[in-house]
Formats: sequence, C-alpha cells, structure tokens
Amino acid sequence: MDIKNICILGAGNLGTRIALQAALSGFDVVVYDIEQKALDFSLTTMQKILSHLHRAGQIREDIDASFPAKIRFTLDPQEAVRDADVISESVTEDLEVKKKVWRQFGAIAPEKTIFTTNTSYLLASMFAEESGRQEKFCAFHFHDVFYSRVVDIMPHSDTDPGIIPILEDLGRKLNQVPIILKKENPGYLFNTLLLALLGAAAKLLNREVASFQDIDRAWMVNFHMPMGPFGIMDSVGLDTAWHIISALPDRHSQAFAALLKTYLDKGKLGEKAGEGFYSYPNPEFKKPEFIM
Amino acid sequence: MDIKNICILGAGNLGTRIALQAALSGFDVVVYDIEQKALDFSLTTMQKILSHLHRAGQIREDIDASFPAKIRFTLDPQEAVRDADVISESVTEDLEVKKKVWRQFGAIAPEKTIFTTNTSYLLASMFAEESGRQEKFCAFHFHDVFYSRVVDIMPHSDTDPGIIPILEDLGRKLNQVPIILKKENPGYLFNTLLLALLGAAAKLLNREVASFQDIDRAWMVNFHMPMGPFGIMDSVGLDTAWHIISALPDRHSQAFAALLKTYLDKGKLGEKAGEGFYSYPNPEFKKPEFIM
Ligand SMILES: NC(=O)c1ccc[n+]([C@@H]2O[C@H](COP(=O)([O-])OP(=O)(O)OC[C@H]3O[C@@H](n4cnc5c(N)ncnc54)[C@H](O)[C@@H]3O)[C@@H](O)[C@H]2O)c1
Ligand SMILES: NC(=O)c1ccc[n+]([C@@H]2O[C@H](COP(=O)([O-])OP(=O)(O)OC[C@H]3O[C@@H](n4cnc5c(N)ncnc54)[C@H](O)[C@@H]3O)[C@@H](O)[C@H]2O)c1
Repeated sequence: MDIKNICILGAGNLGTRIALQAALSGFDVVVYDIEQKALDFSLTTMQKILSHLHRAGQIREDIDASFPAKIRFTLDPQEAVRDADVISESVTEDLEVKKKVWRQFGAIAPEKTIFTTNTSYLLASMFAEESGRQEKFCAFHFHDVFYSRVVDIMPHSDTDPGIIPILEDLGRKLNQVPIILKKENPGYLFNTLLLALLGAAAKLLNREVASFQDIDRAWMVNFHMPMGPFGIMDSVGLDTAWHIISALPDRHSQAFAALLKTYLDKGKLGEKAGEGFYSYPNPEFKKPEFIM
Repeated sequence: MDIKNICILGAGNLGTRIALQAALSGFDVVVYDIEQKALDFSLTTMQKILSHLHRAGQIREDIDASFPAKIRFTLDPQEAVRDADVISESVTEDLEVKKKVWRQFGAIAPEKTIFTTNTSYLLASMFAEESGRQEKFCAFHFHDVFYSRVVDIMPHSDTDPGIIPILEDLGRKLNQVPIILKKENPGYLFNTLLLALLGAAAKLLNREVASFQDIDRAWMVNFHMPMGPFGIMDSVGLDTAWHIISALPDRHSQAFAALLKTYLDKGKLGEKAGEGFYSYPNPEFKKPEFIM
C-alpha cells in the first residue's frame, strides 16, 4: 500500500509537529481540529519550528516560513478524512475524547484508511473498538518528532499484522526510528524508562536527600547530558508531569504530585510558562558553572 | 587543613582510578592492598588508562606510562597510612570486609587523618564506628573518576561538619564535581537514578514488551545517548549488576536477577569478559545502523 495522504486529528503540540514533518517528507497533509484558534496557532507554531530548524541548519534553505501553506487546515471532518490513507490522531489525552473522535471518524473514513493513535499513556485497545475497525488500528506514537525521533509501533491483540510493515516504512519516511513493540505497554519503551528516572528523582527530592539542582547536576555530569530530571520535567511541562504522576497510587508519587501542585498553583508550568523548577529562557542548569 | 598525602585502601578497579587521578593532581599517593597481584595489576591498569587518556587528548604529553612510578604500592598497613591526611577506602563491597579494614586502620592511622569510604550501596554509618573515630568519617564516593566525574560527599549523623569543606575542596582538586548530600541514601544520587532506569528496562524485558536491543535503541535515539540500559549494564559488569539486583526483594528484580544469572553461568560478565548482552569489542549498538 502506497501512503500519500495523511490526516492529522488534533492541531495541538504533537499534531502540529507530526503534520509539519509529514509535509516536509512530501506527504499530502490535512490537519483537523474542533477549534479555529487551535488551527491558527498550529500554523504559527509550524513557522516557529521551521525557523528554529533553519537556525540549527537542520533543513533545506528553500523551505521557509511560507512552506506550511502546503498543509490544509480544516474544521470539517468529512473534508479532513476524504482521501486519508492514514489517520494520525493526536487529540487531547482523555479516554472519552479519544472514544468520541474514533466513533466519529470510524464512521466516515474511507475503507482504505489505516487508523493510528499517538496516545502517550492510554492503550489503543481501550478505544480501538469505537472505530468499528480495530484490525486497522495501531498505536503509532511519536516523541517530539524533531529531536527525539523514536516512533513506537504498538499493535494491540486485534491489529492486522499486515499494517505493521506499512507503518514501519511510513515511520522511516517521516525521518523517525520505528520500534515495534511485542505487546501493549502503557508508556511504550522510552516513556516507561523516563518515568522511572523521574520518579526516582522525585523520591530523592521528597526525602530531602539533595536539592533538585544537585540531583540534576549528578545526572548531567556523570552522563554528559544537557539536562537532568527536573530540567526534563520543566521541558515536558509540570502540568503534564502532574497529570501523569498524580494518577500513580504509591505514596511517593502522591507526595510528589502534591509538590508539583504547589508549582501549578503559582502558574509555574515549566519552560513554556517561563518558570518551573528553573527560570527561563536562561535556566541555571545551562550555565557552564552549573556542572563545575 | 592542607591535604598532601592520600592513602588508598584497595587496589581494585576504583582504588586504581582514584590513586591515579590523585597522583595526576599532584598529591603524594600510597596504594595498599592485601594481595601483591592486585598491586601489580593496578600498576598495569594505570598505564592502560594513561595511554587511553593520551589517545583521547585528555592529558599532558609529558605524563607517560612511567608516571605511575611516582605512586607507592605497599602490602604494609603501617607504611601505607604513616603520613595520611586522607584515607580513601575502596576495598571489596562487603560489610564484614569494610568493618575489618576500618578496625585495622582506625587503630593505626595518625590523629590528623580524615577517613573516607567509596562504598557504592552500603552506608558509612554501618561501619564508621569500627574506626573508633566516626566524627572523622564521611562517604566520599566516586563514579568512574575520568568520564563520570561526580564525587558524592555524604556525611552520616556523627560526621564533623568541619570536614565537609575540606572534602569539597579535595574533590575539586581531584578534577571531580563535588555534590554534598543532606542525608544518607544508599546509592547516593546518580546510582539511585541509574538503578531506577535499569530496573524499568529489566521489567520491560521480563514482560517481553520488546527486545533488549529495542529498549536500548529507544533510549539512545530519543536522548542522543551513546548507550542504553543494557549497554550500561554490560559496562558496569553483569556480576555487579546481579549483586545489586538480586538483593532487591520485589518480584521483577528477582526475575531479572534470575535472567542475569543465566548470563553469569555462561561467563558472560559484560564488556570486560567480551560477552554480555552484547559482544565486544564491537557491540552492535555502536554501529551507526543501530540507531537508524
Ligand atoms: N505533548 C507531548 O509531548 C506528547 C508526546 C507524544 C504524544 N503525545 C500525545 O499526543 C496527543 C496530543 O497531545 P498534545 O500535547 O498535542 O495535546 P494538546 O492539548 O496540545 O492538543 C490537543 C488538541 O486536540 C484538540 N481536540 C480536542 N478535542 C478534539 C476533537 N474532538 N476533535 C479534534 N480535535 C480535538 C484540541 O483542540 C487541541 O488542539 C495526546 O494523546 C498525547 O498523549 C503528546
Ligand atoms: N566498580 C565500580 O564501578 C565502583 C564505582 C564506585 C564505587 N565503587 C566501590 O569501590 C569499592 C571497590 O570496588 P572495586 O570495583 O574497585 O572492587 P574490586 O573488587 O575491583 O577491588 C577491591 C580490592 O580490595 C582488595 N581488598 C580486599 N580485602 C582487603 C583488605 N582487607 N584490605 C585491603 N584491600 C582489600 C582486593 O584485593 C581488591 O584489590 C567498593 O566499595 C565499591 O562499591 C565501585
């Protein structure tokens, strides 16, 4: 099967990045959302990402801020899905929203369409059935698309094995490194590892073994990494971190969720808000003396 | 207090590296062990490390393989400790051995000597008393000295706070990044984080979610790291990894310890044995196509 047309559901943080990469890779891309302002913001964000990629020398000179004009943005579900070879769904991480969206698009998508979800911590098996075509359904999960380039391909028990190689090939064309999981696991591979790391860092902070700066410093110096666990949380967003951690039942997660809540209550959502554990745009951990 | 003379107890993997760095930093160094062959091997290892540092351009040209001749190696405890301003203990990671060594050296060390242990997972408070001078005693814990340069300074409840700044200064002179912990924690900061990461990787493998290669790949690609959790275990040594993990009571640790045991039984101790999860000296994860 030859993939040409990709339909992105949800024009948020991830939908925007996937859509841009798909267009850069030569696919025909339609982006759908329920909010016009999400579509407008998505276009602006794409222009920002492009100029960032330019500055980093990661993109051809002739691809400029006018490039996103190639991408169609729409509020019309029918138009969004009309020619879709693949749907990549990146709507809000909420089971009820995912179910609703897949009921809706399962009913109107062409026969040929492969259904994929970018959910981070839910499992495709929790809502694939809503689409009415669970055999065409597979988790196809990105990280940040441009720096962290793993795409997880995680079939559930009803996924037709025939779509796996198609998604693997698509992943490579999207400049990702496809990794095929043998069974469903919430958080796939990388997020599972990352969450364990962040959880251990949170526990050290809760137990007052060291400051968050010293915990980050230990990780950065020994592994020559550009940031540590608390810097990573700031970049993920403390709201997202809270969302994930507050759902974990153990005592340490709950204590850490309570600490995160004190940050959220002050509007400190991390890098995007200018304040989190660190202050942006020039956080202390980026200064050379931090690791000396 | 001006530190000039450093006495290293235990001429194994870590004692050797600390002694070499101390000599490179201009300290007078004596290395003590109970085995002549450990002392001989230590000298040979220092020469290897030096030629490696040369190749990597990390060391002055005039410091060559003859350099370790500046270091004294001895089987005589009295001679080892006679002038010691600081003892850095890196004997076998075994509580009874640590206790014995500290009873012995607590009885013969000069009044001025500061006592430090490099234990990885024991706590100084478990054996500081044996020295008879627990207020002079503090954990001063290195990682691999040359690449991972954190030195943890972890006082126990009886440590004289006055020795902390002395150790902090010594750590910097030893080209390390000193981090002072607020309270005792087995594994300090970095090893605690690392163990959480390795435990999560082991759990993914146990549950057969993915191959160890794919788990490593996910970590390496997304974080642009030179190795993943299983590559790290190979470099730490699967015997050491087994030692740590088999002591953890939970089901997943026990299952993973059992898996590691199958490697040990075949002599696959990791990088140092030429075989572990990967085969050395050219493990698959170092090939460019591994992360493509
Ligand atoms: N943020 C990340 O780092 C990240 C990484 C990988 C995967 N993901 C996953 O991607 C998905 C989206 O995350 P995000 O960070 O982009 O969220 P986001 O909040 O930035 O965007 C979600 C978008 O979905 C839209 N939406 C809501 N209901 C909709 C509906 N019924 N139909 C169409 N659009 C609808 C919203 O208007 C919004 O624009 C989630 O499942 C998340 O777990 C996120
Ligand atoms: N290997 C690592 O990566 C690492 C990193 C940080 C800290 N450490 C810690 O450093 C210490 C040493 O670890 P290692 O990997 O160098 O071990 P090792 O087995 O390589 O060396 C231990 C040395 O201690 C000697 N020894 C045993 N009993 C002794 C005694 N009574 N008196 C003097 N010497 C004696 C042995 O002969 C051997 O040479 C341990 O506490 C370990 O937890 C190890």
